[in-house]
This record gives sequence, structure tokens and C-alpha cells, in this order.
Amino acid sequence: MAELVPVESADDDRLADYRDLRDVELRKHVEAEHGLFLAEGEKVVRRAVEAGYDARSFLMAERWLPGLADVLETTDAPCYVVSEALAEEVTGFHVHRGALASLARPPLRSLAEVLADARSVLVLEDIVDHTNVGAVFRSGAAMGFDAVLLAPRCADPLYRRSIKVGMGAVFSLPWTRLPDWYAALPTLSARGFTTVALTLGEHSVPIEDAVRGIGRLALVLGSEGHGLSERWERSADVRATIPMAPGIDSLNVAAASAVACYVAARR
Amino acid sequence: MAELVPVESADDDRLADYRDLRDVELRKHVEAEHGLFLAEGEKVVRRAVEAGYDARSFLMAERWLPGLADVLETTDAPCYVVSEALAEEVTGFHVHRGALASLARPPLRSLAEVLADARSVLVLEDIVDHTNVGAVFRSGAAMGFDAVLLAPRCADPLYRRSIKVGMGAVFSLPWTRLPDWYAALPTLSARGFTTVALTLGEHSVPIEDAVRGIGRLALVLGSEGHGLSERWERSADVRATIPMAPGIDSLNVAAASAVACYVAARR
Repeated sequence: MAELVPVESADDDRLADYRDLRDVELRKHVEAEHGLFLAEGEKVVRRAVEAGYDARSFLMAERWLPGLADVLETTDAPCYVVSEALAEEVTGFHVHRGALASLARPPLRSLAEVLADARSVLVLEDIVDHTNVGAVFRSGAAMGFDAVLLAPRCADPLYRRSIKVGMGAVFSLPWTRLPDWYAALPTLSARGFTTVALTLGEHSVPIEDAVRGIGRLALVLGSEGHGLSERWERSADVRATIPMAPGIDSLNVAAASAVACYVAARR
Repeated sequence: MAELVPVESADDDRLADYRDLRDVELRKHVEAEHGLFLAEGEKVVRRAVEAGYDARSFLMAERWLPGLADVLETTDAPCYVVSEALAEEVTGFHVHRGALASLARPPLRSLAEVLADARSVLVLEDIVDHTNVGAVFRSGAAMGFDAVLLAPRCADPLYRRSIKVGMGAVFSLPWTRLPDWYAALPTLSARGFTTVALTLGEHSVPIEDAVRGIGRLALVLGSEGHGLSERWERSADVRATIPMAPGIDSLNVAAASAVACYVAARR
């Protein structure tokens, strides 16, 4: 059972994990160096703990305690109970979904572990927006994908905002970081996956035709701005496109990935 | 040709259209009462002017002038030239995509005008997030939809953030506001549309089956939180669902609308 610890000063060192949550650059350092990540909102906190992540601590206003009582039962981490004003002072924003949790960041899984038995995986190159990473995880999970692989520069799926937008899909969907950017797609091909890169480039085939009949599929998505790198686009087995109305630039990456995952799930 | 007007004080009344752009509630009043809307970023400003919206004025730092020179050629509205610091002081945020324009909000089109010749329309009930409204417009435009209809309480597609996320799709896709919430869907049925409501509810059919063979289609989307109202869900001709993996709540509305539009475009 978590110990309930009232805290009344924003300077209290025990609140260090929760400071300045809107300062993305600061948080990247804090979370990497202390090996932690933050979950926000009753539903997401619950999913993190139920998925087996070790809580370092919780932080919430008193009125959020009853809703998470059963979750707090299962852990020995302290629960710092603060006023809503104090929560806002520490975190730098109004925590309108109440509960926060700081959890231990587990070691990265190996590629072999993540790919074992996987039939459909998503591969994200340099998606830089945490919102988009979360949305892609959520769509992948909804469409029955088995895993997500991230290029070295892709945004962190355990960042608070990724988790929140993904509704905790990052907890249920196995993922890891690809160690080698240059060889990433050939490595997957060598492991028996057909790599299908979503692109706006020429010489691509409609996504339905591209994925038809593929057994082990790696669906490859590029960054928000300029899409896939030339290296990844060229080193994929197949280049696919979502047919669009004339004169339209593109779908955003969250929309495109949802469509591509939907089509791939029906291949 | 727009007159270039250097402005050096944040208090200058000529900058009134651009004040406190992050204050959503304030902006709703300002923009409704003065009949204006804001476009942000070189690409979006260009699209707004090229789509025929009347510019009231422009505001930009000097370095953004060359990129929009051809657009400024076509208008008599003043272009306020400010330092980046002054732009930030007035708007309340760092305008990292440079240009802003204030444009006259045109009168709403009639339902008859928007629906004339339309084969595929989107109908949004109470989507409250401007980002989602923009994403839905963008996906609808990409998938060849002909129009968008908004319930009385749906968020404003001409709000700065909707326009930006939609990459200006709100300029190319005809839209209007439905005057009557209660009768909205039966009114569309009476006009010859089959209304297909996207829902998580029971008694719904997979979206591919739901839209197959429909001529004039109205695809109906609910709000982010609790989906469609009971009234709209019941008064639609067909209830459809996107098949998902077990244990997943839902796709977010932007992802779900992209998938549904994609499937509908292939009906």
C-alpha cells in the first residue's frame, strides 16, 4: 500500500521528479539521467502500473485518491498529496486530469525479443512530435500491430505527452530503439520482414496493392516535415502511397499511419 | 500592392487584430465581433489570399517579406513590419513560422449551396478541439470529400489552429454550420444523403460494409470524449464502426476520420 505523504512546499525535494513538466528540453535530461518517465491522468497512471512499470512515486490532489485507491494498494511507492495550486506551482501547468506518477524507465528490449512472433510492425524514422508518436502507437495498437521500432532520432514514446495521446498504447505494444539507422531496413529484410515505406515519392504503389499477401510486414513511416530519408526510402523493399485527391499535399503522419495500419491489418 | 508599415510599439492600435493569440476564449470574442480570422505561416497565408479571402492586414518580421512578396502584390491591405520580439510581445508567443494575416470572415454559405453536387460530405457533431477539426478537414480534402457540415457546437474551422493543422483545407473544402442540431441528420436524409454515423456502439456494421454502394454519403463523426449524442446516433440511417483489436478503447477522432474517409472514398 502506498504511503500517503502530505507535502506543502513546492521546494520539497521529494517533488523533484515532477518539476517543470512543460519544459521539454529540461525534461529530456531529467528523465534520461534519473531513469524515469511520467504518466498523467487517472486512466494512464492505472495502465502504467497495471502493465508492470515500477512506480517511484505518485503526486495528486486529495480528490483524485479514491479513483486510484485500488492502484495505490498494489505499490509501496509514496503518494505525495498536494493542493491543486501546489501541483500547478511544481509542474508548471494546471493538472486537470489530476493524478501524476513517476515510474522507472525499464531497460530497452532487444530487437530479437520485440520481433519474436511479430507479424506486423511499425517502423518510425524521425517523427519529432511527441503527439504524433503517441497517435501512431494508438493506431498501431488499435489495428493489431505487434511492435514498434524507432529510429535513433525518433521522439521518445515514454515522454508524458506521447503516453497521454497514445492512451497508454506504449505500455501494451512492445517497442525498442533501432541501434543502427543506416542498416535498419536491410536488417529487417534479413530477418524475414518485407519493409513497405509510406512515401509521397514517385514510383510508389497504392498501399492496398503494396501490402497484399505480405506475411511479416514492417510498415515504415517518415518524419512530419520531409518524410523519409533518401536512404530509408531507397533501402525499403517496397514504396507505397495512400491515393489522394489532386492538389493535396499530404495527410498528417497520424492520419496517414492510421490509414496505412487499417489497410495493412486487412492484407 | 500592400503598403509596408513599420510598427515599433506593441501598444499600437493597428496591431489590435493580432493580440493575445493564445487566449482562446478572448480570441473567440474578438474574431466573432470584428468578423475576422487569423492565418499563420507563409504557406497558409498564401493559401488564404489565393482562395479569395479579403486580407485586413498582414503582420510579419522583415525576413518573411521576400517569401510573400508575390502575395503582397495582389492586395491593398497594410503589411505591418515588426521585429520578432515585438511580434512575440503582441501575439503572446514566438511566431516561428513568421507571417500572420488577419482576414475578413465571409458570411456562412447556405446548406443548399454547400450540398449542391456534393457526393461525399463529412458531418461533425461536437468536436471541441481545434486541432481535431483541422485534421478532419485535411483528411476529408485528401480523400476527395466535397463538403463539411458542422453541428451548432462544433469548434470553429477558421480558428488559427484549425487552419494551421488543416494546412488550409478549410479554404478549399466548402463548409457551413447546420442551423438545427435536432433535425440535422433527418434533414440530410431528406435531401438524398445516406447518413452513416461512426460509433463504438453495438448494432453497428464494419465501415467497409456500411458505405458500400452508397451514392450520396454523409459520414457523421462525434466528439472526442463521448462520441455522438444519442439523438444523432439514433437518427442516422446507418451505424458503422472501424474494426479494432480487442481491448482497445478507440482511435482518436483524427485517426478514425482518416480511416473512415479513406474507406468511404473507395466505396
